[in-house]
Amino acid sequence: MKQSMTLIPTLREVPADAEIKSHQLLIRAGFIRQNASGVYNYLPLAKKVLHKIETIVREEMERAGAAELLMPALTPAELWQESGRWYSYGPELMRLHDRHERDFVLGPTHEEVITAIVRDEVKSYKRLPLALYQIQTKFRDEKRPRFGLLRGREFIMKDAYSFHASQESLHEMYENMYRAYSNVFARCGLNYRAVIADSGAMGGKDTHEFMVLSEVGEDTIAYSDSSSFAANIEMAPVVMEYPKSNEPQQELEKRETVGKKSIDDVAAYLGVEKEKCIKSMLFQVDNRFVLVLVRGDHEVNDIKVKNLLEATTVELATSEDTSKIMKCAIGSLGPINVDFEAVQVIADHAVASVVNGVCGSNEEDYHFVGVNPDRDFKVSQYADLRFIKEGDPSPDGQGKIVFAEGIEVGHIFKLGTRYSEAMNASYLDDNGRTQPMIMGCYGIGISRTLAAVAEQCNDENGLVWPANLAPYDLHLIAVNVKDDEQRFLAESLYNTLLESGYDVLYDDRAERAGVKFADSDLIGLPLRITVGKRASEGVIEVKVRKTGETLEINIENLVETIAKYVVK
Amino acid sequence: MKQSMTLIPTLREVPADAEIKSHQLLIRAGFIRQNASGVYNYLPLAKKVLHKIETIVREEMERAGAAELLMPALTPAELWQESGRWYSYGPELMRLHDRHERDFVLGPTHEEVITAIVRDEVKSYKRLPLALYQIQTKFRDEKRPRFGLLRGREFIMKDAYSFHASQESLHEMYENMYRAYSNVFARCGLNYRAVIADSGAMGGKDTHEFMVLSEVGEDTIAYSDSSSFAANIEMAPVVMEYPKSNEPQQELEKRETVGKKSIDDVAAYLGVEKEKCIKSMLFQVDNRFVLVLVRGDHEVNDIKVKNLLEATTVELATSEDTSKIMKCAIGSLGPINVDFEAVQVIADHAVASVVNGVCGSNEEDYHFVGVNPDRDFKVSQYADLRFIKEGDPSPDGQGKIVFAEGIEVGHIFKLGTRYSEAMNASYLDDNGRTQPMIMGCYGIGISRTLAAVAEQCNDENGLVWPANLAPYDLHLIAVNVKDDEQRFLAESLYNTLLESGYDVLYDDRAERAGVKFADSDLIGLPLRITVGKRASEGVIEVKVRKTGETLEINIENLVETIAKYVVK
Repeated sequence: MKQSMTLIPTLREVPADAEIKSHQLLIRAGFIRQNASGVYNYLPLAKKVLHKIETIVREEMERAGAAELLMPALTPAELWQESGRWYSYGPELMRLHDRHERDFVLGPTHEEVITAIVRDEVKSYKRLPLALYQIQTKFRDEKRPRFGLLRGREFIMKDAYSFHASQESLHEMYENMYRAYSNVFARCGLNYRAVIADSGAMGGKDTHEFMVLSEVGEDTIAYSDSSSFAANIEMAPVVMEYPKSNEPQQELEKRETVGKKSIDDVAAYLGVEKEKCIKSMLFQVDNRFVLVLVRGDHEVNDIKVKNLLEATTVELATSEDTSKIMKCAIGSLGPINVDFEAVQVIADHAVASVVNGVCGSNEEDYHFVGVNPDRDFKVSQYADLRFIKEGDPSPDGQGKIVFAEGIEVGHIFKLGTRYSEAMNASYLDDNGRTQPMIMGCYGIGISRTLAAVAEQCNDENGLVWPANLAPYDLHLIAVNVKDDEQRFLAESLYNTLLESGYDVLYDDRAERAGVKFADSDLIGLPLRITVGKRASEGVIEVKVRKTGETLEINIENLVETIAKYVVK
Repeated sequence: MKQSMTLIPTLREVPADAEIKSHQLLIRAGFIRQNASGVYNYLPLAKKVLHKIETIVREEMERAGAAELLMPALTPAELWQESGRWYSYGPELMRLHDRHERDFVLGPTHEEVITAIVRDEVKSYKRLPLALYQIQTKFRDEKRPRFGLLRGREFIMKDAYSFHASQESLHEMYENMYRAYSNVFARCGLNYRAVIADSGAMGGKDTHEFMVLSEVGEDTIAYSDSSSFAANIEMAPVVMEYPKSNEPQQELEKRETVGKKSIDDVAAYLGVEKEKCIKSMLFQVDNRFVLVLVRGDHEVNDIKVKNLLEATTVELATSEDTSKIMKCAIGSLGPINVDFEAVQVIADHAVASVVNGVCGSNEEDYHFVGVNPDRDFKVSQYADLRFIKEGDPSPDGQGKIVFAEGIEVGHIFKLGTRYSEAMNASYLDDNGRTQPMIMGCYGIGISRTLAAVAEQCNDENGLVWPANLAPYDLHLIAVNVKDDEQRFLAESLYNTLLESGYDVLYDDRAERAGVKFADSDLIGLPLRITVGKRASEGVIEVKVRKTGETLEINIENLVETIAKYVVK
């Protein structure tokens, strides 16, 4: 493509509203422009990268045994009412109505539509398993769109859905998809981890997120410094023994601690380590109240509380509820003398190892000291209830935990019968009995992957595209197009390279050399070929974007030289 | 692809609500399913055809010099307010608002968005011309969605837009696009015509529609039986000499014609040919009234009236207005003794050749006979004001006009400065003067092309895909998969054919032979390869879907035989 015939509007300045590197660079290098908050135009360079990502995804989906289809964005509300998501999804769901006042949804995902299709067309176990995928524009009305393509309101997704007659069959497809996703992100040149994830609002069990490691991100990943273990910190189990001190138990005593409320203040005031403090937090768990205890240096993980108690919602109790139930303020909560009829007490394993600790007294300005669990208060259950910390042992027994930020680019998920039961998608098994189909769902953020690559692959001069995703293989530059020798040579090389099967961006613009080189670095194609002053001698320059390596070569050696760097 | 692993839900029955062949066959052969009125799921076979159409379109667009981008479906209302279409588009425009009550449009076309992009990024004539295209899902809330994919509410379009500094540059791109469109539809195997079209509501001048000839369609095309001339009947000019009779002029006379109102009744009652009658119709043309005269065997073409008078709206006058202006009922209108201050009289060329004709008298139950134009009434202008008729001479002087129904699959259009002026998209010319960009726009209905091919390429047994668009090249059938010899041979051929680069659909289902053959005919791949009873001898059958030609061949000759029929 001749650069004069396409639209690559580069910018020298960093756009004021772009907080992160990928967003800044995709705008500066002329890949994207905002159309509305969280809604972007993919300009020609970005569109080429999207094509390359999509091609990789299609190849890996076909290899995993999935067939491509395309469902509409407009989805009748009735399907969403059947699944119940019409009522539960909230304001992120974009709703509209047609000229006849019929309600529609602009699909953020397509579980309802695919379940309706398969329900209507597949009736027998003989037609299962079946895996279908699509690559499509999706809509989600984010409250706070940000980070450019990373959290937008209109975005491109690959979503796949599978239907099975057994858990084993689902598991086999899940493993296929796990491999396919690993291949996709490896082929995209990304440093990623498959992370054990929270199933969130989707209500299933087995689930992995594919996370690109990054300096920015909306999720924190806890991973082992010496194994492949990785989990969303919300989901990382804490597996460790807490050493119990041999210190003799002291007597329980109430101490005045006027104005001291935070763990830090109380520990400092009483001259004890935070590890000796017991933090008490009151949660409303569905319709009851639960006091959760963790050590002062730990944080309660409410997802673990929710999973332990098999609850639907877990929320911090309000101060009104706290004073009604515990007769005190939130900052004074403690586990001693609690009314077990009104409140259940559960504690993290670490609490059991506290000797002569400190806790709130359910009375303002007083704390207990010399507190010994099980002697001074009862705990109905000890469990893993806290967030993992950096330095904790990795749950797989290998190495220590490190944190990183992550950008979620993929998600695979065993849905089970959540949708098939709600929407009556059943099949006849080999005994002629009606059974709900067992489902899996598998998503990849296509436009988000583009941004994740930009976030991971750049340097101070601009983007540095991995070969598989680069919008073009080569950037051919005629330094001075007004010089006939340079222009003729560049055009002849352009045709030669196209004929050799390379995708070439040819900068034929009448711009200064400095502008062309700066634009070229910003755009970040793998190889730059510069036709300059030595054109008359048949000598040109080849520069590797990633390493900066520069070679002066004779044009006769061009195709051979390129073949060393760019594999077609 | 193994047929057991994809979703091709064929039907034996014709669906009750599908009126036309393409709609019936695409449903019966398992290509599409309705999701809501005018909203369809493209099942795996249709998705494969869409890919092939899109690939052809991309190749031809790149060759025409256009670069691909992707704009969002969600378009802020502000852009549509700038262009004015927010107010004029009517209920076909799907509107919605986000969680912050900001108005958006689901784009039916993208003139506003592309104009805003180019306005913001291109400032100089040096960056023009520029042509950009996208392939995207579009939305239009049709009042009466019908004919399956032909008139849907969510559909796939290729839309291209070009920006120019001169009419010559626009014209050059228009010619490029004309060639590109001709190539696209030829490569899709369609019998089409490039038709001179009405510019409709778009307000431009040069425009061609690409129409697939068909038994059904929403437009009638007038084309020459012996040249490439074709036009929408609304736009076909009438170019002919009307012979004037030598009959001596009679005297004007008023005759009683009680109860005779239609041309047919009056002609029969008075014993004259319809060609002798003068039909008078009163139109409201913007704010004035115009009496339009055509011969009794002709019909007024109001678009020609509108163009002649350079009007914005042309509508038949109401009976209230008619009786106010002409003091008579609509059925009695005539051109004699008309008040020229209130009404302009214009006539089709054919009227000038009427001698001793008949016309209304502006008085109930009376007609004039012996009417001679210019002697008995004045005409301010003679012009081409009627619809062309079958049998009329072709306007290019070659052959006679024939009518056919047409399915519009493409449209190219010189937009001019309609959007650039409204939205202030200007550039600096080489004298440093600000000029509005001159625009063209060019659309192809991608999903509609799929339906048009299905409408044109079928027989009594099902679809008959042209080689370039067939979802797969070959349909490989194992007649009885429970027979090990057949199954082994079929699977080995499947792998051989895939390795040879063919796209193969392999029917590995445990279905009866009759079902498999009927499904295969319905789906309509170019070549069927059947592995049946003679598998043990290494003999298989090859059948050409289009001609029915059948060959029994040895497996050793398979690849060679296929190469004769399917070009890779």
